[in-house]
Amino acid sequence: MTQFWTDTVKRLTPYVPGEQRSGENITKLNTNENPYPPSPAVMQAIGNVSADALRRYPDPESVQLREALAAYHGVALENVFVGNGSDEILALAFLAFFTHEKALQYPDITYSFYPVYCDLYSIESQVISLEDNYSLSMDRFVPNAGSIIFPNPNAPTGLATPRDAIAALLKKHTEQVLLVDEAYADLGAQSVVGLVNEHPNLLVSQTFSKGRSLAGMRLGVAFGDKALIEGLQRVKNSFNSYPVDAIAQAVGIASIEDETYYKKTLSQIIESRDWTTEQLRSRGFEVLPSSANFIFARVPQQTSGKGSEPAAYELFQRLSAAGVLVRYWKKPRLEDWLRISIGTSADMHRLMDCIDA
Amino acid sequence: MTQFWTDTVKRLTPYVPGEQRSGENITKLNTNENPYPPSPAVMQAIGNVSADALRRYPDPESVQLREALAAYHGVALENVFVGNGSDEILALAFLAFFTHEKALQYPDITYSFYPVYCDLYSIESQVISLEDNYSLSMDRFVPNAGSIIFPNPNAPTGLATPRDAIAALLKKHTEQVLLVDEAYADLGAQSVVGLVNEHPNLLVSQTFSKGRSLAGMRLGVAFGDKALIEGLQRVKNSFNSYPVDAIAQAVGIASIEDETYYKKTLSQIIESRDWTTEQLRSRGFEVLPSSANFIFARVPQQTSGKGSEPAAYELFQRLSAAGVLVRYWKKPRLEDWLRISIGTSADMHRLMDCIDA
Repeated sequence: MTQFWTDTVKRLTPYVPGEQRSGENITKLNTNENPYPPSPAVMQAIGNVSADALRRYPDPESVQLREALAAYHGVALENVFVGNGSDEILALAFLAFFTHEKALQYPDITYSFYPVYCDLYSIESQVISLEDNYSLSMDRFVPNAGSIIFPNPNAPTGLATPRDAIAALLKKHTEQVLLVDEAYADLGAQSVVGLVNEHPNLLVSQTFSKGRSLAGMRLGVAFGDKALIEGLQRVKNSFNSYPVDAIAQAVGIASIEDETYYKKTLSQIIESRDWTTEQLRSRGFEVLPSSANFIFARVPQQTSGKGSEPAAYELFQRLSAAGVLVRYWKKPRLEDWLRISIGTSADMHRLMDCIDA
Repeated sequence: MTQFWTDTVKRLTPYVPGEQRSGENITKLNTNENPYPPSPAVMQAIGNVSADALRRYPDPESVQLREALAAYHGVALENVFVGNGSDEILALAFLAFFTHEKALQYPDITYSFYPVYCDLYSIESQVISLEDNYSLSMDRFVPNAGSIIFPNPNAPTGLATPRDAIAALLKKHTEQVLLVDEAYADLGAQSVVGLVNEHPNLLVSQTFSKGRSLAGMRLGVAFGDKALIEGLQRVKNSFNSYPVDAIAQAVGIASIEDETYYKKTLSQIIESRDWTTEQLRSRGFEVLPSSANFIFARVPQQTSGKGSEPAAYELFQRLSAAGVLVRYWKKPRLEDWLRISIGTSADMHRLMDCIDA
């Protein structure tokens, strides 16, 4: 703390990402990274980037990448925005659409960056409770009472909301923005990108970090009505004109173009997810049906020792000591659960061996 | 415009970067890019980035890159911050240190992104006039009346402020932050990075875009007292945890390590700058003594046709039609001037040929 900090800096409680420990013999199942490398076409695109492309500023509007995304999703160029990871897009969107007087609605158990953004911009929030089974009911949101954001599938539960339920909410909620955060949508949830042309208040964000194995490149996308995209561009161009570098633009295009590889790795992850779910359930864990590249699992009480700590916390610590990193939150309704990213088949066998040991 | 935009979005006047026209036979002297490619070591570092580094999140704190920068500049790791270009760093710094009630002081002729940030965050500004000879006098700033930002060298004038003059201002101005924007400082100005340990209110920003030929990679640096850097980190971690991607981190380290190449290209640019200055002066242009990778030149009136437009504007248009892009602002005190980035020797000969034609 220093006198030079503004009140904004003083009041912040920054987001804390998962531990990035690395090294020999670490199985990293704590940050929802894809266990498979990006497409070979991506590596080739990187090798093809010229020295000339590096000395020059990149295209500030990323037109070629946005055109590739528009064609892939069947929308127009003016419906597509790209940014430095979907986190940057969310940060810009909160400023562009949520700093109204009315409180922003989002689930009580969800991506923990949302309250951080609210803090950053002094946005009031209206927290919506998940059901007892951890599902997110669209009926809990109050249409037009304030803007709405939720992830689909939700995190850390992995539970998806069907497209029809979101469409029904959009019929009633027309006065403020609805932002559907589809960071994990390529692992089984129904995307609502196809609805952006019918709903001028629908914004959808996605990322290249999960399904497309490009967390290291920082690339996110948003889809929405032309006026929403223009709002994002206005804020972007008042903050940082060139957030997406020349290599990231080339990499994004190469990834979009290799559909075969993308689908193959997605199906491998889904196969591992099904296997892991079954294995954990057979050991007494409760596992929510996941549509994401992670599972949310309730640790059975008998696994615990005689300590006063929750069994999930003790297992989290034992796994960490054995070199298997998963994510744990000591918070109400979460403290008996672990969020486990889906790795390769070998990763998940190691997890099971550690749990059994 | 739409009802969904917040008041912030509605009131913005976004920054407009220089035209990024490209193609055969274009000589691009309008965005202060380095005419030389980045170091061969940089290209090698890109080829060495593994697929594994791309599927994983990058180090959110960019520790290895910051260590390289700390060693290079003789400061500690805790004195170094990196971001997605120095524009992102400025955007974070304005929020972290300038959203106080007191007005921010900056020159009337300067980097045109400063008023955009003020608009974004509703920061009052106190504009300080340059002298008649376009120099920036430190005596015009009112110590402790509010925070201060200026580029050194200034843009678009290219004029540098000596280190001693900045040190003298720092002796009096101790209550608010002084941000020295050294985007162009590697081309001849005296850096004040060495003063950060003596002044807890001094923040210095630099970029890899100009001297290091990496505009396409988006990489900026800030140096300051530990508490200022912590303030930037708090805002960064409340906005976007991972703004610097894995390749940019590797590239930054490789660039810092190849000092020989860096010095060689800088001296080539300075040689072209001297030659171009002399050539323009011999044709009746007034050229300010530049410490940057561009020059600011007043177009002699006799070059003009009989039109009512300023001679500089007419020359700007004729050059553009001939495929030579320079920067022009139709604004008070700037309308008779062109800002010309320094290219290769061949680029500058082409410029002279076009001016003569």
